[in-house]
Amino acid sequence: MANVSQQKAYTTSFIIAGPIVHSEDIRALTIIEHGFIAVVRGKIVSVCRNTEKLMQTQQEYGIEDVNVYYLNEGEFVMPGFVDTHIHAPQYPNAGLGYDKQLLDWLTTYTFPLEKKYVDVDFAIGVYESVVRKTLASGTTTATYFATIHYESSLFLADIVERLGQRAFIGKVNMNHGTPEGYGEHIYDSFTCTEQYIRNIQCKRNELVQPIITPRFALNCDMQLMMLLGELAAKYNVHIQTHISESTGEVAAVQKLYPQCRNYADVYDRAGLLTNKTVLAHGIHLSDDELKVLAARGTSISHCPNSNTSLKSGLCDVRRLLDTGIKVGLGTDVSGGYSISILNAIRSALQTSTHIFFKKHQGSGYIPLSYHEAFYLATLGGAKALSVDDKTGNFKVGKDFDALIVNMRKPGPIDILDKTDIKDLIQKFLYTGDDRNISKVYVAGRQVK
Amino acid sequence: MANVSQQKAYTTSFIIAGPIVHSEDIRALTIIEHGFIAVVRGKIVSVCRNTEKLMQTQQEYGIEDVNVYYLNEGEFVMPGFVDTHIHAPQYPNAGLGYDKQLLDWLTTYTFPLEKKYVDVDFAIGVYESVVRKTLASGTTTATYFATIHYESSLFLADIVERLGQRAFIGKVNMNHGTPEGYGEHIYDSFTCTEQYIRNIQCKRNELVQPIITPRFALNCDMQLMMLLGELAAKYNVHIQTHISESTGEVAAVQKLYPQCRNYADVYDRAGLLTNKTVLAHGIHLSDDELKVLAARGTSISHCPNSNTSLKSGLCDVRRLLDTGIKVGLGTDVSGGYSISILNAIRSALQTSTHIFFKKHQGSGYIPLSYHEAFYLATLGGAKALSVDDKTGNFKVGKDFDALIVNMRKPGPIDILDKTDIKDLIQKFLYTGDDRNISKVYVAGRQVK
Ligand SMILES: [Zn+2]
Ligand SMILES: [Zn+2]
Repeated sequence: MANVSQQKAYTTSFIIAGPIVHSEDIRALTIIEHGFIAVVRGKIVSVCRNTEKLMQTQQEYGIEDVNVYYLNEGEFVMPGFVDTHIHAPQYPNAGLGYDKQLLDWLTTYTFPLEKKYVDVDFAIGVYESVVRKTLASGTTTATYFATIHYESSLFLADIVERLGQRAFIGKVNMNHGTPEGYGEHIYDSFTCTEQYIRNIQCKRNELVQPIITPRFALNCDMQLMMLLGELAAKYNVHIQTHISESTGEVAAVQKLYPQCRNYADVYDRAGLLTNKTVLAHGIHLSDDELKVLAARGTSISHCPNSNTSLKSGLCDVRRLLDTGIKVGLGTDVSGGYSISILNAIRSALQTSTHIFFKKHQGSGYIPLSYHEAFYLATLGGAKALSVDDKTGNFKVGKDFDALIVNMRKPGPIDILDKTDIKDLIQKFLYTGDDRNISKVYVAGRQVK
Repeated sequence: MANVSQQKAYTTSFIIAGPIVHSEDIRALTIIEHGFIAVVRGKIVSVCRNTEKLMQTQQEYGIEDVNVYYLNEGEFVMPGFVDTHIHAPQYPNAGLGYDKQLLDWLTTYTFPLEKKYVDVDFAIGVYESVVRKTLASGTTTATYFATIHYESSLFLADIVERLGQRAFIGKVNMNHGTPEGYGEHIYDSFTCTEQYIRNIQCKRNELVQPIITPRFALNCDMQLMMLLGELAAKYNVHIQTHISESTGEVAAVQKLYPQCRNYADVYDRAGLLTNKTVLAHGIHLSDDELKVLAARGTSISHCPNSNTSLKSGLCDVRRLLDTGIKVGLGTDVSGGYSISILNAIRSALQTSTHIFFKKHQGSGYIPLSYHEAFYLATLGGAKALSVDDKTGNFKVGKDFDALIVNMRKPGPIDILDKTDIKDLIQKFLYTGDDRNISKVYVAGRQVK
């Protein structure tokens, strides 16, 4: 029997035995101290709470001894992270430009950078780095904004496919209020997007999906948004955009769309609020808007690092959850400076605690706990993207998207004593980094 | 001439040429795009804004070509980080126990761990790891709480000396309201502390200093605190303790010391507020208390990660600075989960932004900027510890406590293009980690 480190990258049928951690719902973590997961052709066929039936399972699925991997002390297996909102082209700006707030930041830092992706070679260099780094940080599912450029957006999809990430990749649409040299005519925007969707669907790779991506209500007119809504229905594809990130933006949207009741209503009238739509931020949404989102099955990508870095505000995730809205976490690079969902988990906990500080003592407000943040980073994200039938936790029939976490590897901190699994999980969530993620699997394929 | 990577560890006379970054005051960073720093026997003898006089300086101080190190593209040199508050014995708990708030957290997680340091072997194992890890993370000056144990506290000082960190090391005093098996009698507490001070002063190593460390007003009675105040005066040593971290603690202190006007007054009456005193937290201090601290020259160690993790509150650093109080940053491991001052910088920026969110639009409140956080992490910390004559920035006559930052090393993010120095600094502060700190110097000795 082989140590997990000896696994061949191309084997997609195997058993991993040891501590298992995942979320079955938001209320608690499911921790199996010593069990096993059997994976056959990338899909989970068995999850056991002990190892009694390990040999029987091996025989049943014809898994050889060499493909049974026992985790060592300090290791555990958990679902891969889901990043529900990341701008791949903004990666070179990570860590820069936090002296500006959203609308100024876009014109000063973001649009000038995104313009460069007309150069396909430049795009390929950055995109290759982004996909490698996010995979190395444990992001098995990513929801990417690309740029308005058809060609380089397709290259992002090619790179995702080659490196083996599960991803939604969106060519951005922008036909209104656009900066010099970075905008589209409505006709081009629409036809390119349809062509783009077909092109990606032709891959017939379930892991790589197109997503319709109007930048936000200030950069698209109603006509284009309605056309995109029709496209989404025609091809049954996902939709992503931004909503209610900064108060300046909310005011500008109200001014631009005086006929609409509120920001959410703009997207609703365009047919963009579906149960396959993910909206980034949603900090300043009214109760009425939340009700509409909940009714449509539309989800929110919570991007706490970005919301603080761009001084947009504190998003109250507890309120979103209480309204029945699906929530996932997003890094929102480069509004957020970190590509790691571990950082999004920590930032979400900080933001939630700071909202707790604002509430009155008698309010009964409970800040997010680490097990809730773990849920948001995995199953919550999968639900937000409506891919929880495929990923997000370890259920028989789902794809095996997983991380082998090794807290004994040299990383930010040392683990000095034998540490129980519950403590190891907390240490990973609060202090771990990519060095502690020794292996990453997507649909059973080892991609790190 | 040698590349910086070839420098011998024992050479304390050398020149480093390339981009230089440091704080001269809180208002702005001083950035020298291509200059040099000459170091002779650990002390800075020259800081130049260009390299014209490099050869002349070499000749003047007899520095051979082999000891001139040119930084590469992507590298810069900056002052080492100052951690003004860290509990070395709590390191094994980093990342654990944030389901409790301060007073419960102490009894549930912290005291049971600290008790173990009666075992010197256990202590040595942890302390060796703490000092190595903090040095690797760029902490050139650390202000440690140890435990009540005389012997293991001395071992911490020995380890600090051997590994070459600049540090204040405090044996903790606790004679009131102490848990079973973890407390002292007043006589032992006092005599051990005097013996401890003498023992460390006998090292005659300027880098390794004792610091008087009453845990906090709830764990020392007034008589002990007054004796410790006298000791501080007699030996002219530093003092550290905690103040006003949680509202529950503040209420308990008021109850325990009804004769005192407020929390700060407790320490003031004991003679513990000097210009060599550092108080951790100070979240809930009144304006009156701030005035007393400012008058005494007493400083605050701002520990934002801890304040959020233990749900203590948001400390308004801007308010402290406006009152004329010296402020440094602290990790407060394991109330804070990160040993890295880079994390303290980011947490301080987040906390300050969240205070900004709370203020009214017309308040004119300005959240901390990254260059202010850089100051707090370096020169601010040195001032808070009254060692700014020795460290904190690059001034002729100070010791060379410095980091070589290399943003080209594999780390959390890739730097894809040639990046100017101002952007490199931001990328380090927001996205860098210990992997980007390729070398660490304390008083000219290379310790990483
Ligand atoms: Zn975004
Ligand atoms: Zn402390």
